[in-house]
Amino acid sequence: MHWRYATKQFDSSRRIPDEIWDDIEKAMVLTPSSYGLQPWKFFVITDSKVREEILPYAWNQRQVVDCSHLVVIARPTNFGAKDVDRFIARTAEVRGVDADSLAGFRNMLVSQLVEAMADHLDDWAVRQCYIALGNLMTAAALLKVDACPMEGFVPIEVDRVLGLPERGLTAAVMCPMGYRASEDRYAALPKVRYRLEDVIERI
Amino acid sequence: MHWRYATKQFDSSRRIPDEIWDDIEKAMVLTPSSYGLQPWKFFVITDSKVREEILPYAWNQRQVVDCSHLVVIARPTNFGAKDVDRFIARTAEVRGVDADSLAGFRNMLVSQLVEAMADHLDDWAVRQCYIALGNLMTAAALLKVDACPMEGFVPIEVDRVLGLPERGLTAAVMCPMGYRASEDRYAALPKVRYRLEDVIERI
Repeated sequence: MHWRYATKQFDSSRRIPDEIWDDIEKAMVLTPSSYGLQPWKFFVITDSKVREEILPYAWNQRQVVDCSHLVVIARPTNFGAKDVDRFIARTAEVRGVDADSLAGFRNMLVSQLVEAMADHLDDWAVRQCYIALGNLMTAAALLKVDACPMEGFVPIEVDRVLGLPERGLTAAVMCPMGYRASEDRYAALPKVRYRLEDVIERI
Repeated sequence: MHWRYATKQFDSSRRIPDEIWDDIEKAMVLTPSSYGLQPWKFFVITDSKVREEILPYAWNQRQVVDCSHLVVIARPTNFGAKDVDRFIARTAEVRGVDADSLAGFRNMLVSQLVEAMADHLDDWAVRQCYIALGNLMTAAALLKVDACPMEGFVPIEVDRVLGLPERGLTAAVMCPMGYRASEDRYAALPKVRYRLEDVIERI
């Protein structure tokens, strides 16, 4: 965690080796989420043409094109009962039980989450995507892979480039990943964090 | 990440050793955030009286009182220029520069974040807290410490118990931490995640 920093300049000649990237993908998929519902889809973009298309909508931050793997974390625009049903079907499959035996759980999720929180589901889904972002950055740092979390982009345009609207998805956050360029002066700056005693209070 | 799960029952007789807890606190403090602004405060509650007070407002989920350390991640209710100034002062201190030399950065943060996103700063701060939650759960799992992320609580009451309103804070999310009870049958259930090829799309 001390080693990592928000990488401003990537070495565009270095690619994350497949075996390391595979571990990062596995970690992403294992991210915890509210009720385990996983309201996300991860896009891993290595195609340089697509990245060039995204660049102007990411305020021309070069990390988008210079990184090794560009991750876009997207969320469903209309999370609903169909997503719960998909999750229940997957639970039944993984645990070798009948989906009908999970009807109580299914109905609780629909009534207490989908219906009761209808006006807040977008925010809820975005927050889950940020758990994935946190997990992703920590996992990457452990594997000595650099990352630059990025909230500054135009979602509607990134969505259009990736064809997300017609799939009921929208970009929540992006994270270019790869290896820092040796000339990135930000790598050497002391990390700024508040003192432990100023952010943690024991009761 | 395979080892962890949302712990339903903690072994109330087991306490996280200080040296392990210290590492978890250090990892929390190092969590990345938007512009590095760290819009959070972490409360680590071991006082059983305070935990009993919180219990009914966490829908009587016993993890709140049975865990070793209860973490409440709080965010500022009114993030503003004063928080930016505090961050700039800390940056100047850590990097050994004059705060005046950071005036451009400071003014950019005030105009592009505090002012331009005034209606969205609460959501923005909560999302940063969820990066901390993701980092916290991953760090804990690496240290074989169990956790149970919890969104289901009554913030206004938890805030009152902790005296947060008068400090300009409000609880964003909680996370009881400790060690799973041997009888927690959830520990043995196969983890439910969508298939990697269903959540990750390579472009």
